[in-house]
Amino acid sequence: MVTSRHVAQLAGVSQMTVSRVLQGSSKVAPATRERVLAAMKEAGYRPHAAARTMRTRRTATVGVVVADITNPFYPQLLEAVGRALDEADQRMILWNATDPGEASALTALSEGTVDGLIFTTVAESSAPLEEALRDGQPIVLLHRGLDSLPCDQVTTDNIAGGRAVADYLVAAGQPRIGYIRGPELPSTARYRERGFRERLAELERPLAAELTAPGGFSHDQARAAMRELLARDDPPTAVFCANDVTAFGAIDAAVSMGRRVPEDVWVIGYDDIAMASWDSYDLTTVRQPITDMAHAAVRLLLERIDDRSLPPRQQNFPSELVIRRSTANTTL
Amino acid sequence: MVTSRHVAQLAGVSQMTVSRVLQGSSKVAPATRERVLAAMKEAGYRPHAAARTMRTRRTATVGVVVADITNPFYPQLLEAVGRALDEADQRMILWNATDPGEASALTALSEGTVDGLIFTTVAESSAPLEEALRDGQPIVLLHRGLDSLPCDQVTTDNIAGGRAVADYLVAAGQPRIGYIRGPELPSTARYRERGFRERLAELERPLAAELTAPGGFSHDQARAAMRELLARDDPPTAVFCANDVTAFGAIDAAVSMGRRVPEDVWVIGYDDIAMASWDSYDLTTVRQPITDMAHAAVRLLLERIDDRSLPPRQQNFPSELVIRRSTANTTL
Repeated sequence: MVTSRHVAQLAGVSQMTVSRVLQGSSKVAPATRERVLAAMKEAGYRPHAAARTMRTRRTATVGVVVADITNPFYPQLLEAVGRALDEADQRMILWNATDPGEASALTALSEGTVDGLIFTTVAESSAPLEEALRDGQPIVLLHRGLDSLPCDQVTTDNIAGGRAVADYLVAAGQPRIGYIRGPELPSTARYRERGFRERLAELERPLAAELTAPGGFSHDQARAAMRELLARDDPPTAVFCANDVTAFGAIDAAVSMGRRVPEDVWVIGYDDIAMASWDSYDLTTVRQPITDMAHAAVRLLLERIDDRSLPPRQQNFPSELVIRRSTANTTL
Repeated sequence: MVTSRHVAQLAGVSQMTVSRVLQGSSKVAPATRERVLAAMKEAGYRPHAAARTMRTRRTATVGVVVADITNPFYPQLLEAVGRALDEADQRMILWNATDPGEASALTALSEGTVDGLIFTTVAESSAPLEEALRDGQPIVLLHRGLDSLPCDQVTTDNIAGGRAVADYLVAAGQPRIGYIRGPELPSTARYRERGFRERLAELERPLAAELTAPGGFSHDQARAAMRELLARDDPPTAVFCANDVTAFGAIDAAVSMGRRVPEDVWVIGYDDIAMASWDSYDLTTVRQPITDMAHAAVRLLLERIDDRSLPPRQQNFPSELVIRRSTANTTL
């Protein structure tokens, strides 16, 4: 069967553009519209009846599922997704949800309340999620991925991010490198730790177990973990944290004990949320390109809503080390 | 007509309990259920046909409309509302929305996708909102109220909060009191400023125009405003900010200029979000009882979904000054 993808290739445009032409959107330039219509004719493309029914049933509403909205990373990601959807004339409904919410979002999808779903906080696969994907429901995983699940996923390269931090700390000559670990399940925490550990081992500076502590993804848990590390006779001289919020917790632990950052201990986070650049923290961190990720997720989802036959696509954005005062602005 | 309210009064229980008995909820103790059923019989209460139809049409889903989710106050409020809804066996759908989203939420309400709406960020009334209220749609305003609109509203006493800050700063002998103003429209910002100004005037310490600056509700704008105030020959010795996020901006301005908080300048915020107690800010602020407010809003909404004939109800929670290190822990 000729799909919108064939038409897009033939016309040299994106599937989104083909979709817009089908919807009569005013966002397509007249010349482009002509080219797409000609390509449809040439390819013998006819949106078949089911697809047409589906299209007319569209709600132009996309569901976004999130947990842990008190971690400011997620509101920032949601703002970006909301803006990207807005630019595509789509509305957004949010589910702030752990498992029950996930089921309710999947129900809304199967009932047609929303045209597709973006999951931002999956930690494990689940039977309802796998079933929805088997049924070809339009779903994109954003930020956190699932290796085991062949579906559209938009992530950043957390392994490379963890490696970059290891390179930076070793090159800066830090004698005792510590790590405040994230939770076990999310891909983000696992990959950051894997990249960090692997690169330290390659550099013959393996991470010492006694200089690591579990911080979850929460400020308070990380603060407690850092207080323990700093209370040691040989405390770490630099601590990498699984995300920015836990890095703030680590800095606050130092403040609470009268230690100075970066003079007594360096702290590094991950995400580069807006707060990371606030003067009180001024945090060295690994930047995720939040806006680009949001746009990519929306694009993949709208393409899949338009053509469920597309193969699973995975987009893994590069991450970037941003050096600020919490590591003494040492440049390498 | 005998309503669920009459039954509740007769049985000495809340309307919520009557509603739960009608729904066959397992959350009602057997003895209470008996009492409610007896009261229904005594009062001759029969949920009439339309109400029954409406009840069977219930989605057990409530919509919550919010703007500005990157201000951490709102994620915290949404978490609390989500938990309160969860306890009442209701699901939550969020609209992150300025005006277009508001319309979309009202459409979802009129189409029955949600049973009711909680608005957390109204700044002005609007024709669609007023029309929905005239139609008796279940809507509750939470956090920000609208004086002009006779409807269910849950707020805190922002005037009393502003007055308490004025009392505190004058009693502490602060010679030059400044103010970083919030946006013009939201009731929260207007009432905080009104209480602060009025009380300062009553204490014969009227707010000096040259020691005030507009900070919106944003960190960066407040930081710029504070830098201007601190650059004066006679800078303020204490600055009250319209919310916590702008107080963080004010503290960060001081940090960026090498000024110490509280030694050189005191800073006070409003809301008492979780971050306010983090060591790097340790902010004196006015606490809003977020959990209590969320529960009240959910209760009012569920009661109204059950009985649209209820008169408009307004609940105004007291606020509380919480003194921390950003004002030198002066106790009075």
